[in-house]
Amino acid sequence: MSDYQTFTADDARQFALSHSDTFRDSDKLEAEEFGDGNLNLVFRVKNQQGRSLIVKQALPYARCVGESWPLTIDRARIEAEVLLRHGRICPEHTVQVLHYDAAKAAILMEDLGQLTILRSELVAGKQFPRLASQMAQYLAHTLFHTSDFVLNGLQKKTEVARFLNPELCLITEDLFFTDPYCNHERNNIHQAILPQARELWHDEALQAEVARLKADFLSKPQALLHGDVHSGSIFIDAQQCKVIDAEFGFYGPIGFDVGSLIGNLLLNYAGQFGLQEDTTALEQQHRYLLEQIETLWQGFASEFSQLMQTQSKESSFANSSYQHFFLQQVLADSIGYAGCELIRRTVGLAHVADLEQIRNEQLRARSERLALMLGRQLIMQRHSLTTIQQLLTLVQHQELPA
Amino acid sequence: MSDYQTFTADDARQFALSHSDTFRDSDKLEAEEFGDGNLNLVFRVKNQQGRSLIVKQALPYARCVGESWPLTIDRARIEAEVLLRHGRICPEHTVQVLHYDAAKAAILMEDLGQLTILRSELVAGKQFPRLASQMAQYLAHTLFHTSDFVLNGLQKKTEVARFLNPELCLITEDLFFTDPYCNHERNNIHQAILPQARELWHDEALQAEVARLKADFLSKPQALLHGDVHSGSIFIDAQQCKVIDAEFGFYGPIGFDVGSLIGNLLLNYAGQFGLQEDTTALEQQHRYLLEQIETLWQGFASEFSQLMQTQSKESSFANSSYQHFFLQQVLADSIGYAGCELIRRTVGLAHVADLEQIRNEQLRARSERLALMLGRQLIMQRHSLTTIQQLLTLVQHQELPA
Repeated sequence: MSDYQTFTADDARQFALSHSDTFRDSDKLEAEEFGDGNLNLVFRVKNQQGRSLIVKQALPYARCVGESWPLTIDRARIEAEVLLRHGRICPEHTVQVLHYDAAKAAILMEDLGQLTILRSELVAGKQFPRLASQMAQYLAHTLFHTSDFVLNGLQKKTEVARFLNPELCLITEDLFFTDPYCNHERNNIHQAILPQARELWHDEALQAEVARLKADFLSKPQALLHGDVHSGSIFIDAQQCKVIDAEFGFYGPIGFDVGSLIGNLLLNYAGQFGLQEDTTALEQQHRYLLEQIETLWQGFASEFSQLMQTQSKESSFANSSYQHFFLQQVLADSIGYAGCELIRRTVGLAHVADLEQIRNEQLRARSERLALMLGRQLIMQRHSLTTIQQLLTLVQHQELPA
Repeated sequence: MSDYQTFTADDARQFALSHSDTFRDSDKLEAEEFGDGNLNLVFRVKNQQGRSLIVKQALPYARCVGESWPLTIDRARIEAEVLLRHGRICPEHTVQVLHYDAAKAAILMEDLGQLTILRSELVAGKQFPRLASQMAQYLAHTLFHTSDFVLNGLQKKTEVARFLNPELCLITEDLFFTDPYCNHERNNIHQAILPQARELWHDEALQAEVARLKADFLSKPQALLHGDVHSGSIFIDAQQCKVIDAEFGFYGPIGFDVGSLIGNLLLNYAGQFGLQEDTTALEQQHRYLLEQIETLWQGFASEFSQLMQTQSKESSFANSSYQHFFLQQVLADSIGYAGCELIRRTVGLAHVADLEQIRNEQLRARSERLALMLGRQLIMQRHSLTTIQQLLTLVQHQELPA
């Protein structure tokens, strides 16, 4: 860490200039910091012709998340290396990393400013017809090509060790799997749904199933996950879709990445009841979201199957019954982790705009209750929901709580 | 490796003298090499009063196992560190390591020469009433205290990385899970059971289940396993029982260790039909072996439950339904891995005396066929055999093949 210094705008300009061909020495470069300044510095470096790059630097500050939670700047290495690996596998849907400097904990990457963040668009009721099919490709390829189907034991174990990422995993272990199911001070619960939150703290059947999902999060290194595939990590427009922010990357259960995205689509589904006043528009948005979930799973399953059939390097896993079983367990895991995401985003520390931006408190509470009900059912029924249609039917037949 | 030199008897004497209080400088020490000389040198260093220690040194030779399979001397580190960790947790049943030298790849440990190797005793029809209850304690304690119930994410991940052991894991991946299910040149199949071996190569339903067990072997780091708990790794007498040879140690599924031992007891069960001519003695030995399997599982489950209830450090896993589920999956895994052990010891590269020492070829073939039949049933039925009694009933009702 001796070389580490917090970047000034000038450092960011210099970093961008030195490590890419985008700019010329004669360019007059502007650098503007626009991150939240809490975890990372994020600079946009731009020349007069409007070409731009992003410089992201991890801050070594102890950030407080409830209790104090210092975060290693090694997360910049994790982020850069996950993006580089995923970028080699699926360049279409991974933000491009141009350079990474370990000592400075800084990453130089392409600017996706021409795209928008998926979450705010979904909150505004926008639709992106290619979202699910593009994310299905991204998930199938990045997860398959880092799995036991492709890597041999030595390669896989080396990669597992490279991406242990214990500190950031601990955040997920706590925020995702522990806090929402007990009366933890880090939880963030709106008064109106306190009774429903309390039910979680005494629901031992639910807690047992969440423990199984947590145990798999800890001890099921199936593939190199992005680790935080929520709608705030996706840049999108009508044509393109790119994933950013891979600092939570590690070897974990494949269903965690798939389920995080399904959970975020369902959070928006629940939120739309309070966000969208027009009934026809509400129905359209709901139909869109459910179609996307269906396309996401079908596209993922079909691509992953194709890859298993044609590109498995490990002969033991070329067996078609095994491949069928494997996909079924990914579906069950995905549904379970989607359920966890619904619950933790409603009563845990980190909330989402899909619910928070519902202005009317009663409507918000109703959407939050729906998210909790859905979350619980997904977790509890994940082994009996053996097709994505069964999941969609469950969602559609959900009665909106009072 | 610059310090590494193959030990002479004199080096072994010096190593034992320098790194323990067992001997005095004035002692006249004898050192005798008695290993198989293929993988390791094993010296017994003894003084005139009859006190003795063992010096084990890993050889860097490329050993040929079918194809050439060079083995890192880092396995001495793995062996020493696994034994030291397990020894801290369960000193009663782990061979004591007095010193380990990384550069020399040498371990100084207690001499268990007053005990005998379990396999040869079982082959001779001997019984050790405390075997199962002692091994149940060993397995429950070593596996619980290295699991997610006790270690936090950071500790666990650090340990997982320390014990990746890719080279020795690869041996198991191949010999245990791959070779027996295809026509591999490494396989070692007696002519008489070639038809039954061939059935394995075309049994896609069985291969699918073995693939699931192999995937868990690769990607289910539940606890620090011994990794090779067979009856040749256990020193025993009427009072004591100690486990040696931990070079295959790594973080894997708990059921692998438990199942390896059950599989070895069942190999002896199958072998007894050909080893024991006297019907009454045969029945007695069978009864003993089944009782030991029952006691092993019941003792393990009861101790592991007790530990989960009283010593879980991770609150999420304090849930009793989760703990019940956890033990059930360990049982299913154990039965599955026991099945794999039965099959691979019968048709794979490394055979066992329990079958090989049957002098009559026809009788040996009959026992081997029984081992294969049992192995297949255990693997295929592991999820429906939900109690150890159901497993024992299955074994007892097995008809001896022609």
